[in-house]
Amino acid sequence: MPTRARYELYYWPSIQGRGEFVRLVLEEAGAPYVDVARAKGGMEKMLALLARGADGVRPFAPPFLKAGKLIVFQTADICAFLAARHRLVPKDEASRLHAHALQLTIADLVAEVHDAHHPIAGGLYYEDQKREAKKRAADFLRERLPKFLGYFERVLEENDCAHLIGRKLSYVDLSMFQVVEGLTYAFPRAMARIAPTIPLLRALRAGVAARPRIAAYLASPRREPFNEMGIFRHYPELDASPK
Amino acid sequence: MPTRARYELYYWPSIQGRGEFVRLVLEEAGAPYVDVARAKGGMEKMLALLARGADGVRPFAPPFLKAGKLIVFQTADICAFLAARHRLVPKDEASRLHAHALQLTIADLVAEVHDAHHPIAGGLYYEDQKREAKKRAADFLRERLPKFLGYFERVLEENDCAHLIGRKLSYVDLSMFQVVEGLTYAFPRAMARIAPTIPLLRALRAGVAARPRIAAYLASPRREPFNEMGIFRHYPELDASPK
Repeated sequence: MPTRARYELYYWPSIQGRGEFVRLVLEEAGAPYVDVARAKGGMEKMLALLARGADGVRPFAPPFLKAGKLIVFQTADICAFLAARHRLVPKDEASRLHAHALQLTIADLVAEVHDAHHPIAGGLYYEDQKREAKKRAADFLRERLPKFLGYFERVLEENDCAHLIGRKLSYVDLSMFQVVEGLTYAFPRAMARIAPTIPLLRALRAGVAARPRIAAYLASPRREPFNEMGIFRHYPELDASPK
Repeated sequence: MPTRARYELYYWPSIQGRGEFVRLVLEEAGAPYVDVARAKGGMEKMLALLARGADGVRPFAPPFLKAGKLIVFQTADICAFLAARHRLVPKDEASRLHAHALQLTIADLVAEVHDAHHPIAGGLYYEDQKREAKKRAADFLRERLPKFLGYFERVLEENDCAHLIGRKLSYVDLSMFQVVEGLTYAFPRAMARIAPTIPLLRALRAGVAARPRIAAYLASPRREPFNEMGIFRHYPELDASPK
């Protein structure tokens, strides 16, 4: 696909959410795209596509991407699809498979972050499951967060210490940046405590943030700030207790 | 890859779990494989691979598959990898992407089935989160199950009514069979109630079960029965209430 083609990204406006993983790939690639639901009439267009599908493809939920006639859904698949077209993943099959499995492991972590504040039902308010959220978040911070971050730290270490796969930036690194960024927003105390054990992940985060296109994106109005409607939410009562 | 190559599947013994999605692809393909952790000394081999990785790949968790020198992890990726080699997915890029997105949507549903009985922590016993499980399972059956199954029913309808993608059996159909089978085991009352709305999914389930290789597999000792240690668990108190 020529990089001039204009992609259409469909995702809920006003939050970073899962759409952000796709945006980071588009921004780093310098690929022209429209964030459809943020434009006038875009929300209706997105809901119509969700209700009816198009060209034989019916996305289950946002985000989804239109690339010409092609409709791609599921965040990890959209990222991998774009990465293959914009040299943000190594070419050989083994690396592609490995990259995608790492990306799905990131997706698993993201789902657990979401469920830390919504352990009972995605359709209910946080306030209606706050007690359960406290229990789940405590387990998440005690058991799951160290397991996931420890895993990715080792993957970095066993690769080249700077990238999760290959010898240059891939879509997996971009997503990892977003996760560390989001976790630091949501759980500042827990992340401060775990920081000494994840030097490579912290360096990765700083390195991605400093890339010219990403830095420009983060400073732009296109980067929605984190908020309490997205996946990474800062509820102090769910964070680790103060020392 | 020649079909003579012997695959090594690594997964927890004694449960179907996520390994079952891979087994169904291997069985339908007629591909020779070893279920490593079910053989003598296999558990140690699996744990060693998890602890150290191999050939530059460190799986996050079982299942993972060794195919020669290649190690593939993440259930959906293993299934897609095998399917591409054994003609269980259409060849063109658009269909491959579409199939994988459907597979990831099935994976999302499976994760929600798991969390219906483990809403607080995967590392705690069901008995320690039973009250929360009742709330989550009720929401799952009321909101999520109809949403997911209604979605897949429409995907079938908009395709050829018999397959989720393409015109012949794919790995996505095999996984869908497993999900309907598992849901019927775990939530017989809820599934009986929803049955009239999902005729195509029920036909898919029956069709897959009747395929010679799958029928032989299901009748063999290699098919572990469902049980209360796996993902699909039958806890009557979590099912829909009797009429």
